[in-house]
Amino acid sequence: MKHAVTFDLIKTDGRSRARRGVLHTPHGDVQTPVFMPVGTQATVKAVKPEDVASLGHEGAHILLSNTYHLYLKPGHELVRKAGGLHRFMNWNGAILTDSGGFQVFSLGALRKIEEEGVWFRSYIDGSSHHFTPETSIDVQNALGSDIMMAFDECAPYPADRSYVRQSLELTTRWLKRCKEHHRDVERQSLFGIMQGGVYKDLRAQSAEQICELDLPGYAIGGLSVGEPAEIMYDVLEDCAPRLPADRPRYLMGVGSPDYIFEGVERGIDMFDCVLPTRVGRNGRAMTSEGELNMKNARFKEDFGPLDPGCDCYVCRNYSRAYIRHLVNTKEIFGGMLLSEHNLYFLVRTMEKIRKSIEEDRFPEYKREFFDQYYAPKRDKEEQ
Amino acid sequence: MKHAVTFDLIKTDGRSRARRGVLHTPHGDVQTPVFMPVGTQATVKAVKPEDVASLGHEGAHILLSNTYHLYLKPGHELVRKAGGLHRFMNWNGAILTDSGGFQVFSLGALRKIEEEGVWFRSYIDGSSHHFTPETSIDVQNALGSDIMMAFDECAPYPADRSYVRQSLELTTRWLKRCKEHHRDVERQSLFGIMQGGVYKDLRAQSAEQICELDLPGYAIGGLSVGEPAEIMYDVLEDCAPRLPADRPRYLMGVGSPDYIFEGVERGIDMFDCVLPTRVGRNGRAMTSEGELNMKNARFKEDFGPLDPGCDCYVCRNYSRAYIRHLVNTKEIFGGMLLSEHNLYFLVRTMEKIRKSIEEDRFPEYKREFFDQYYAPKRDKEEQ
Repeated sequence: MKHAVTFDLIKTDGRSRARRGVLHTPHGDVQTPVFMPVGTQATVKAVKPEDVASLGHEGAHILLSNTYHLYLKPGHELVRKAGGLHRFMNWNGAILTDSGGFQVFSLGALRKIEEEGVWFRSYIDGSSHHFTPETSIDVQNALGSDIMMAFDECAPYPADRSYVRQSLELTTRWLKRCKEHHRDVERQSLFGIMQGGVYKDLRAQSAEQICELDLPGYAIGGLSVGEPAEIMYDVLEDCAPRLPADRPRYLMGVGSPDYIFEGVERGIDMFDCVLPTRVGRNGRAMTSEGELNMKNARFKEDFGPLDPGCDCYVCRNYSRAYIRHLVNTKEIFGGMLLSEHNLYFLVRTMEKIRKSIEEDRFPEYKREFFDQYYAPKRDKEEQ
Repeated sequence: MKHAVTFDLIKTDGRSRARRGVLHTPHGDVQTPVFMPVGTQATVKAVKPEDVASLGHEGAHILLSNTYHLYLKPGHELVRKAGGLHRFMNWNGAILTDSGGFQVFSLGALRKIEEEGVWFRSYIDGSSHHFTPETSIDVQNALGSDIMMAFDECAPYPADRSYVRQSLELTTRWLKRCKEHHRDVERQSLFGIMQGGVYKDLRAQSAEQICELDLPGYAIGGLSVGEPAEIMYDVLEDCAPRLPADRPRYLMGVGSPDYIFEGVERGIDMFDCVLPTRVGRNGRAMTSEGELNMKNARFKEDFGPLDPGCDCYVCRNYSRAYIRHLVNTKEIFGGMLLSEHNLYFLVRTMEKIRKSIEEDRFPEYKREFFDQYYAPKRDKEEQ
């Protein structure tokens, strides 16, 4: 029995835990560390799939989509009838689907957690739905993603120790049910999710429990949910190595440049975040010199590219002045260009991170990137 | 002294006034009859310029942009500094700019017409602006379009005879001032605009006056502004032949399929309209079988293309079910795909019209198109 998704660890950095690997999926290989663009509702917002596929110098080969959203609209059975999510959305690379757990728990008062699963109300029409680990697998089976995430409970921050412990134990029991329910492991691979909040011993307990299940990959959930960055780094430092070195490690929902570098340094292989497209639609550009607010008057007559260090389609063809005009006149094309550029920026940064690991200079590249991206001068200039 | 834009009439249909021609511009040749996509604010809404350029089988080679909008934002001097409108918006084909007349007159109570020009208030910040024929030329010179339109007064419908007569005479006087003010005729060509409302004799008077100026092209303004279609066709039938046969004839602001066919039949060479992108953003698809409302439940599980007869990027890669999902979830990508498809539909239809004229079967093609597009069954099915 061969798993759909397998992982080859190529190299580990000598001075950090940074890793260079390859994820083999039914829809092609993915070089790691990797940033996965997010296509919540079966579309990476405002970017054509071909343009996603050609991001960076090597292209983007995996994206993330959302089980919860697709379950509600257009419905997973419709996607199944369409021939699966890849075909439905015209994406030939790999797809990772989250389990819907995070979205359901984000509903707060609109949901109720029980051993069996979760009751929640649709944000669309208020209708009542029961989501269980088995439901989540059924839906993800219908979607046909390459990587399915287990249905977990993501504890909030702050949360007291006893709640977090109960929550991670529930997550483990649900993971077992997910694994039990998922049959066609040669078509789709199930990743487990570590929980435990900011409590290192609980993270260790969670890691031990989920690793027993010998899954093809593991994620770290419940971080970057409001805790201070230093606490997150400290917890990550401790818990990432508790996951098996020969399996990919995925830090869920994390995609700001600083978190990515800090994550890579601590042994993370996979990231995802809506940040680049969301800030793009809000008129902001991610550049090697930090984030720029394109509404700023100083770009009015700036005929240079968004990022002088960037060779993407947007930077080769459009000026800051033009993009500022589009943003100021609320033209859709502004969000399209900024989304594509920002995704390119992150995908290209991952390529540079991979190369730096290969060439034993990841720590130097990290310092260099931070010096440029988070230079203190930016604080004064930008809103 | 060579005009920037010249026109070769290749052929006139034997059974109608349909014409087949070529417009030579500083940014390449344009085959006529042509539909010009509209890029009001220096962007064809939600479509990349490369995707505009590759519409149809032969590509789109000319688009329209708006003097009035660009004057207000980002300002024509900024566009000049950017190297002109082509470079600013990354469009290497030809550009026609309207004069701003139509937009200014659409402001109603916000503007005041005098012999010298028009006072109007900005829709953006309420600031007061004075626009004259000379201003319009200055702005269009700064934009650097291939074809500039004269600053005219577009009389509303209905309007009484004496008003319309005064209005067309003012338009003629303004046209003379436009011509006088425009110097570099080898770089940009000025087209005159015929007015006269629905009064055939006034149209004749207008035609006579503007043709005396021997301009490289002429437009028909003030039609499709609310008058019944039969009246418009009747007026067009009478007035189009009053424009010189060896110059291109442009019917302003007209782009619905029926108006295009009726216009071509009456000797029109150029059309523009925001319709395809506007209805696209509103979730509607223009197909060989008429307009489809993609929100309609009957497309829920329809995995076929928008238009079975279409070979565009959208129809080759996406299903009606997927596009319905995008429209229903308000995803930007829905508007992007429908805008691109609808533009393709019209550009491709123009290619077929041109071929039918070449092959002496324009009347047959028109009938065939109408039978499919306006088949009565559609009324029942669509909202």
